[in-house]
Amino acid sequence: MKTLQDYIDKLNALNFKDMYNSDFFLTWEKTDDELEAVFTLADALRFMRENNISTKVFESGLGISLFRDNSTRTRFSFASACNLLGLEVQDLDEGKSQIAHGETVRETANMISFMADVIGIRDDMYIGKGNAYMHEVVDAVTEGHKDGILQQKPTLVNLQCDIDHPTQAMADMLHIIHEFGGVENLKGKKIAMSWAYSPSYGKPLSVPQGVIGLMTRFGMDVVLAHPEGYEVFSEVEAVAAENAKKSGGSFTKTNNMAEAFKDADIVYPKSWAPFAAMEKRTELYGNGDFAGIDALEKELLEQNAQHKDWACTEELMKTTKDGNALYLHCLPADITGVSCESGEVDASVFDRYRTPLYKEASYKPYIIAAMIFLAKFADPADILKKLEEKSTPRVFE
Amino acid sequence: MKTLQDYIDKLNALNFKDMYNSDFFLTWEKTDDELEAVFTLADALRFMRENNISTKVFESGLGISLFRDNSTRTRFSFASACNLLGLEVQDLDEGKSQIAHGETVRETANMISFMADVIGIRDDMYIGKGNAYMHEVVDAVTEGHKDGILQQKPTLVNLQCDIDHPTQAMADMLHIIHEFGGVENLKGKKIAMSWAYSPSYGKPLSVPQGVIGLMTRFGMDVVLAHPEGYEVFSEVEAVAAENAKKSGGSFTKTNNMAEAFKDADIVYPKSWAPFAAMEKRTELYGNGDFAGIDALEKELLEQNAQHKDWACTEELMKTTKDGNALYLHCLPADITGVSCESGEVDASVFDRYRTPLYKEASYKPYIIAAMIFLAKFADPADILKKLEEKSTPRVFE
Amino acid sequence: MKTLQDYIDKLNALNFKDMYNSDFFLTWEKTDDELEAVFTLADALRFMRENNISTKVFESGLGISLFRDNSTRTRFSFASACNLLGLEVQDLDEGKSQIAHGETVRETANMISFMADVIGIRDDMYIGKGNAYMHEVVDAVTEGHKDGILQQKPTLVNLQCDIDHPTQAMADMLHIIHEFGGVENLKGKKIAMSWAYSPSYGKPLSVPQGVIGLMTRFGMDVVLAHPEGYEVFSEVEAVAAENAKKSGGSFTKTNNMAEAFKDADIVYPKSWAPFAAMEKRTELYGNGDFAGIDALEKELLEQNAQHKDWACTEELMKTTKDGNALYLHCLPADITGVSCESGEVDASVFDRYRTPLYKEASYKPYIIAAMIFLAKFADPADILKKLEEKSTPRVFE
Repeated sequence: MKTLQDYIDKLNALNFKDMYNSDFFLTWEKTDDELEAVFTLADALRFMRENNISTKVFESGLGISLFRDNSTRTRFSFASACNLLGLEVQDLDEGKSQIAHGETVRETANMISFMADVIGIRDDMYIGKGNAYMHEVVDAVTEGHKDGILQQKPTLVNLQCDIDHPTQAMADMLHIIHEFGGVENLKGKKIAMSWAYSPSYGKPLSVPQGVIGLMTRFGMDVVLAHPEGYEVFSEVEAVAAENAKKSGGSFTKTNNMAEAFKDADIVYPKSWAPFAAMEKRTELYGNGDFAGIDALEKELLEQNAQHKDWACTEELMKTTKDGNALYLHCLPADITGVSCESGEVDASVFDRYRTPLYKEASYKPYIIAAMIFLAKFADPADILKKLEEKSTPRVFE
Repeated sequence: MKTLQDYIDKLNALNFKDMYNSDFFLTWEKTDDELEAVFTLADALRFMRENNISTKVFESGLGISLFRDNSTRTRFSFASACNLLGLEVQDLDEGKSQIAHGETVRETANMISFMADVIGIRDDMYIGKGNAYMHEVVDAVTEGHKDGILQQKPTLVNLQCDIDHPTQAMADMLHIIHEFGGVENLKGKKIAMSWAYSPSYGKPLSVPQGVIGLMTRFGMDVVLAHPEGYEVFSEVEAVAAENAKKSGGSFTKTNNMAEAFKDADIVYPKSWAPFAAMEKRTELYGNGDFAGIDALEKELLEQNAQHKDWACTEELMKTTKDGNALYLHCLPADITGVSCESGEVDASVFDRYRTPLYKEASYKPYIIAAMIFLAKFADPADILKKLEEKSTPRVFE
Repeated sequence: MKTLQDYIDKLNALNFKDMYNSDFFLTWEKTDDELEAVFTLADALRFMRENNISTKVFESGLGISLFRDNSTRTRFSFASACNLLGLEVQDLDEGKSQIAHGETVRETANMISFMADVIGIRDDMYIGKGNAYMHEVVDAVTEGHKDGILQQKPTLVNLQCDIDHPTQAMADMLHIIHEFGGVENLKGKKIAMSWAYSPSYGKPLSVPQGVIGLMTRFGMDVVLAHPEGYEVFSEVEAVAAENAKKSGGSFTKTNNMAEAFKDADIVYPKSWAPFAAMEKRTELYGNGDFAGIDALEKELLEQNAQHKDWACTEELMKTTKDGNALYLHCLPADITGVSCESGEVDASVFDRYRTPLYKEASYKPYIIAAMIFLAKFADPADILKKLEEKSTPRVFE
């Protein structure tokens, strides 16, 4: 793409009209055209920023963020995306707010949304909870808008739930597309989404699930590898299998990391918690059984420790396509000898891929901004054209 | 009102010139015209937002918020109001800041105000403190402005003090005005501001006080109902009585909830703490007597528990005008069987009024924005006119 | 200066081209022209704000703040400066973020900077750490920009490190320049940077260091006074000595407060911790020896208490030039009989200088904004000219 018009032409060739006034929960709820619209618009917004054309489409308005888990990069990605479009971020901090006092989701969702154009939520800790909570919020503001309480319906962006991590997987994918020179070059490429050892406990399953749920749509051979017991949601595996069938790719599973890495074009080695354990933890929390949680944590760490050989080593990297697979990670990685004694990846491997890894992360703010943009404008291509004509510089000149 | 000009014409017929460069502490310190200017401007700003006309009157500037009590809705209302006008919110978090290190109010007020156009404060916990603190802040920045330290004097918006909750009462009132089709239809209407049981302790008196202090100005029959011992500030009762006399309405008190509800057009059942107990708590805190506070809390909860029959039940609602009074609450409400076993209101009553309740709350950001606007512009009507002529869209189009 | 053109002309006479795309760590790393550019631009931005000319040069962009110590005034100064230029502040709160989970500085610096134009850091607690940390961050984002990860390199503003407090010292200096009617009037003036007693522990050395490192550059006679044991970094003393030689002023040291105050035109009495103790504390923290830190604190407080006679009293003020020296402080001060029993300054002295003290503080937001502006624009004078031509009002009119 050389000019903004190229992006506009591409958008005009896609059908994504159902995204208008909609929300972004899971990638597999979106059509191929819709996902391509997100990628295209993300690239267009980046192109505009790089050419000092302001993409501030809101004169006022709030972007509300609710993080139920620690976050640096997703927090800043959301803030960056909102700011890029002209929205001011307001954190809904449940510690500070009256949610702690037993407010219902329905009420709070409306009370914070009088001038909200976007709500971004990260809620990934408990099985069966995060995505359901996001739907509750969306149902509440949809009804509030219908009832005349809210002038506008804020759009929801899923910043990670128990099922999917769509802004991460989409950013990963956009990185792959750029590295391989276009979606058209991905057919038949092998990608290994592999479990890897980390001396920590309870990392969410939404990253591997997001990856297999998305990357099976581009005709790639997607391999999910993990030790026995580290299964992901079977529903998401079914999605991946179905996707692969449609896209002319494949989705396979293995309990052998070496098999997954063999001749892979792309590898994504990363720790996650066993599904069964996550379910048990959700139940323990529900019962307030903190002793049980401590015991579970101990048990899981012991279980993890049996699989220290699941690591992205130099030896393993040599077995990939030309010894040169693209290494992906959502960051932060547990790096052997750096952030821990024994971790997900050798320090030398990580170091060699540091620049592409950071580029991978750099797509996320644009992915989020594109999701917002597509939900807020009936004709985004027309808006881009008008922004170009207006050509307000982002930095005064 | 059909056009922005209608609001402008209405503003031009009112005298509110003293609001320029002033502050908003208590509704009863304002003239009728001044209050009407707030209502009119709030509606005008809403009209403009609904018609996608930007009301961003500040290119830069800070809106500083200081919350000495938890808050969701007031926090977001203030943030929304500031954002609507172009101000960026900065929280003065006393935990993070050096206030904790013994800075004087005078100094801090100046140090944070170099580029502040507004300061919003919520300080409602201790009798005799919150309003006094707000005056200290205003005195400090007024002097700082006079002495050439501050280029502009930030305007103070009282986001709830120990005496009044003007943004709440004004939002409640604007809701009433819209529900009844105009101020002119309120003469002779009966409104019951009633205590109601809640299994919690120490809710501020500023809501009932704000309500009786404001709603007695529109010719309504205002009844304040509470069990013995739950008196509000006698000074505010005196204000209410005086207001009622002037407006041709009435202000009466009763210890009988049923009497208050009988034939009422509007009911506002809500828990609050007994005045004497709040005074005692203030003293205990002053002395750092936390054991005393615990004992007081226990005593008050027991006292409350004797009045569980003070609840807004379906039976009681049936006794109101046509069984159909407008039910108000500042939210969140303690709903029987939902947020507590036994509370302020029956779940079915609350549910039936959910949409109007949320609308009631939706006025608060506009009320706050109007208060700021009136303090910042000598001729707000002229500014509205110019904004309409400029017609920058809030959302790009 | 009467018109904006005067500031523009002055800027055009200075050579500060190396500030473009650069950072602000220490004042003594900058040339005289560069410092004068900061002062001139700070005054120009203030002039524009006072004349209601918007200086919003960013349509979007983030200003990231990282405070590793409590802060009111610096926090609000940074927020004000960013807001004045159009940048939205995002706090990197290490409590909330994954930094706590062992991320490397390099990675985090890039992850938060995708849309960051500025990073402001306060990290002043440990000897040898704060400034080094800032350099690590700058190295990381410089490399990230070079590698194509970051579209822009955010500029760093040192909001206080272990070595210097440049935004404070520059604000102090701009205050002096205005009080004395211009830099040209400072030759031969005597300024006493003196230790003073405070009943607290461990105040950073960066204020006295910043003052002697900067104020020796204007031909003044700078005297550093402190009890034995309260030495500052010898490297900074060497800088001060060298500066004084070049500027035709002097830099002397004394262990006698009265000697320092005698005939002084300007006095800056302020508590700080002994260098040796700060080094020891840094080591204790490094070893996690919290008992050792407690013991050190006790020891230091006892050491401090031997010097209660180091106070800026009325008697001492009488010995200054015409009994009328300009009293400076970075605030908050420990005021005898107000914030503590026995402190840095008599209440009557502080009270008499309250207005100038607050004015001194009022320069900081403009100093920070000027530092950002100079790093972001190749030709700041031209930008000022264009902003004047555009003349967007800060407050709509």
